[in-house]
Amino acid sequence: MKLYDYLPSGNGYKVRLLLSYLSIDYDLVPINIIKGESQTEAFKAKNPAGQIPLLELADGRTLSQSDAILYFLAEGTPYWPASVFDQAQTLQWMFFEQYTHEPSIAVARYIRHYAMATRKAELPALMTKGYRALDVMETQLNNNHWFAGGGRSIADIALYGYTHVAEDGGFDLSNYPAVSAWMDRFKDHPKHVLITDT
Amino acid sequence: MKLYDYLPSGNGYKVRLLLSYLSIDYDLVPINIIKGESQTEAFKAKNPAGQIPLLELADGRTLSQSDAILYFLAEGTPYWPASVFDQAQTLQWMFFEQYTHEPSIAVARYIRHYAMATRKAELPALMTKGYRALDVMETQLNNNHWFAGGGRSIADIALYGYTHVAEDGGFDLSNYPAVSAWMDRFKDHPKHVLITDT
Repeated sequence: MKLYDYLPSGNGYKVRLLLSYLSIDYDLVPINIIKGESQTEAFKAKNPAGQIPLLELADGRTLSQSDAILYFLAEGTPYWPASVFDQAQTLQWMFFEQYTHEPSIAVARYIRHYAMATRKAELPALMTKGYRALDVMETQLNNNHWFAGGGRSIADIALYGYTHVAEDGGFDLSNYPAVSAWMDRFKDHPKHVLITDT
Repeated sequence: MKLYDYLPSGNGYKVRLLLSYLSIDYDLVPINIIKGESQTEAFKAKNPAGQIPLLELADGRTLSQSDAILYFLAEGTPYWPASVFDQAQTLQWMFFEQYTHEPSIAVARYIRHYAMATRKAELPALMTKGYRALDVMETQLNNNHWFAGGGRSIADIALYGYTHVAEDGGFDLSNYPAVSAWMDRFKDHPKHVLITDT
């Protein structure tokens, strides 16, 4: 399979992490989103939403949305829990990640790296929203080692993607001991890779 | 089961639609989000994210995030397709809905109803983003009757929730014939309910 991806993307990283866990071979097709390569007609023919990561199967079928790709790869493995309630809780945290966590923490990181000249005014509201997302994670992790189903799941992979680069987005994690301990646990996996690994 | 919900919410409506399709009895616990009832300590003890809808099972376990609740209720029914690829495409559209569609179309509707004094300046960017989401839907529906798996699924329910009140948010759907035809098909279900039905 092919993964259309941009290495600094936390959304792409989630998929690369799971592909590593599962020892799945794939071809990485680099798409530089900063240079507009996800907005070309050729790329939009593959994904009308113009977003990476995009997974292309050997038969040409495609899947977009990082967390939907995680589900596709994880189903039938230990990273997708067994009971329907635990599965729904896994998705609950993944929707929290895409609705609340990514749009604040990832966007703050993006602005600090690429858009300070034009979008700096958005940062204060993003920081408030991002800390609120971290508060919700801290509450959960005060009582649980993992987000759902009692073990490492795709909910953890989804939330690790941008939490582990939150400081890069200007967030101070020193008041989040449970989140920090979870990140240490998360990294302790024989197939762990770094965000810029290929 | 109990559903903590606010009747004008499209996110809550999605869950009420599926509960109707499946003829599941439930108690509706009204939470007026405009009056801050989702931000009380009592409610946040049930859902630290302070959001409705929230499903509470008979044994006290809770689930939040409308689309995760849809999965929990739909698994094992025709509204969750059979193949893993079709399931992943269903989730792809649900993540698109929560990441791109809801944060533009639902938020524009919210501002027009409740926050014109303080948030009117956000509307132009939200309208642009919302029309882009509708463009992506139109492209999909030009070639497909439903979003995933060849039949009505929870992806359609998720996207119908706020698309059918998009005009209420200031969006003109007259240039979206495929979206309009899909909404007509969607309403043609013996257990269809309206957003404010209880």
